[in-house]
Amino acid sequence: MTEVFKRYREVQKHLGSIGHGVESKAALIETLSAAAEYVSNTKKVELKSKVPGKSYFGFASGDSISRPVNHELYLEDYSLVERVIRALHDRKLAMLDVSQINRAVYSAAITFCAGIDITKKGDQKTPGTLFEYLCATLLSSLLMCSPKASVQVLNMGFETKLPTDLIFDLGDDRPKYHVPVKTSTRERVIQVWAHQRVLDGVYGAGRFRGMPVILTETKLDSKNLEVTEICLPKQWLLYQMHIAQLWRIAYLDMPDAYARLCGGFPQVPVCTLGDVILSGDLPITPVDPSS
Amino acid sequence: MTEVFKRYREVQKHLGSIGHGVESKAALIETLSAAAEYVSNTKKVELKSKVPGKSYFGFASGDSISRPVNHELYLEDYSLVERVIRALHDRKLAMLDVSQINRAVYSAAITFCAGIDITKKGDQKTPGTLFEYLCATLLSSLLMCSPKASVQVLNMGFETKLPTDLIFDLGDDRPKYHVPVKTSTRERVIQVWAHQRVLDGVYGAGRFRGMPVILTETKLDSKNLEVTEICLPKQWLLYQMHIAQLWRIAYLDMPDAYARLCGGFPQVPVCTLGDVILSGDLPITPVDPSS
Repeated sequence: MTEVFKRYREVQKHLGSIGHGVESKAALIETLSAAAEYVSNTKKVELKSKVPGKSYFGFASGDSISRPVNHELYLEDYSLVERVIRALHDRKLAMLDVSQINRAVYSAAITFCAGIDITKKGDQKTPGTLFEYLCATLLSSLLMCSPKASVQVLNMGFETKLPTDLIFDLGDDRPKYHVPVKTSTRERVIQVWAHQRVLDGVYGAGRFRGMPVILTETKLDSKNLEVTEICLPKQWLLYQMHIAQLWRIAYLDMPDAYARLCGGFPQVPVCTLGDVILSGDLPITPVDPSS
Repeated sequence: MTEVFKRYREVQKHLGSIGHGVESKAALIETLSAAAEYVSNTKKVELKSKVPGKSYFGFASGDSISRPVNHELYLEDYSLVERVIRALHDRKLAMLDVSQINRAVYSAAITFCAGIDITKKGDQKTPGTLFEYLCATLLSSLLMCSPKASVQVLNMGFETKLPTDLIFDLGDDRPKYHVPVKTSTRERVIQVWAHQRVLDGVYGAGRFRGMPVILTETKLDSKNLEVTEICLPKQWLLYQMHIAQLWRIAYLDMPDAYARLCGGFPQVPVCTLGDVILSGDLPITPVDPSS
């Protein structure tokens, strides 16, 4: 993983000083490629999935085992992952379908996270940060807008900055996107609705579209190697009714319990990231693939 | 600390099966006493306080150092701590003043937390759980009401339980108290306002009085032994204005930055736990100390 960390530091350097430019995107792709190379040389261990309809494995090294990796979503061949990520950066959407996007972004993220799991035990921060970088650069390319991590709040008598997750401000007369990025949510997810409520309160409802992007909700019991999904759909419904209204909740490894919320009423708009990107709901100007 | 953990397991057993009765209170007092005994035999190390007007030390054992302990609040003599805690359990409030309550509850909690810090590195859960037990049994004695950890939510078409922190339900025509207990809050505090908002939304505003109880906001840099306080008063003001209105925010080691919010406008009602208990605002029926 030494190679991975070296490249990861490059990503941090670029994103810190230069922003979401060509160099940071190239550095990120190199980091992901190094992580894929690293995990391809480790052992795969089948996990006992308690999640209906989904099967999982983990990467293993020594006595460490990584977080669960979804068989169906995982792309063994990193060149496919890279092709899709480059196409997204270039907004060449006509060459992509929903499943390709979900599988490529999932594979890129989970490979890096798994690599960290088996080399730096207990490090939750680095996987979370890289996943945020990945989503930030992808959405930055698609929306042609660099994200900010706070918004100015003006109130009679005081002025302050509200730190938020990613904010894509497309300018006057256009929606602003509030994008919290999480590798999983658990009980902390209520924060996302609470931040949205503050944005709605300060700026007025409808100005910011809340769209968390979430990798997965799986949990591995490392003793018996069982994989479960932690979902609280009824609580989400309460949050959506009583705290604020999120615009979309975009998953890569989408839990069925949340997918059902989308078909229910009142609706909680859960979908996959591929769906959001290709639905036409986000203001993305596609580029002709032949150009 | 073996003795402390043994007694702590007794507390867990009692609170789990029997609730907030006489036996769980006795077991808790024994646990705190054992923790005080344990730390009294360790070394004290002065810390560099970056917090104006406050000085801190840590308990040390081997190469471990505990979280910061506030000199002014810490009671060396555990018999004083125990006397105050017993008086609170008996609702003999006339024999107590605000400062005694704050110092005794602070000392009891911080002693146990510090003991865990230097014996079980990285364990954040046990100190948090014990502090919740301590506050739960004290408020349970004062309000003469056992707390619950969830509330029933009835909505047209579905029924669910909303897990919350402690809820003291005093019955019909009386306020219910929503009491999240935290050893410190940092960025997670927005959850407290968000839960309050859901309670207000489901039951109607004013039914639940939100009163988080918080130990401290200090942070120790273990490299240079510097103590800082992490406070975000302007964000708290936004939360109080835009998410929900908390009734009181009760500290033991109260940060000045938050104390100032109480005198400001719009007001965020920050105070100490001793203030809340003796102010007459909580429905406590005092018992004559001579009885």
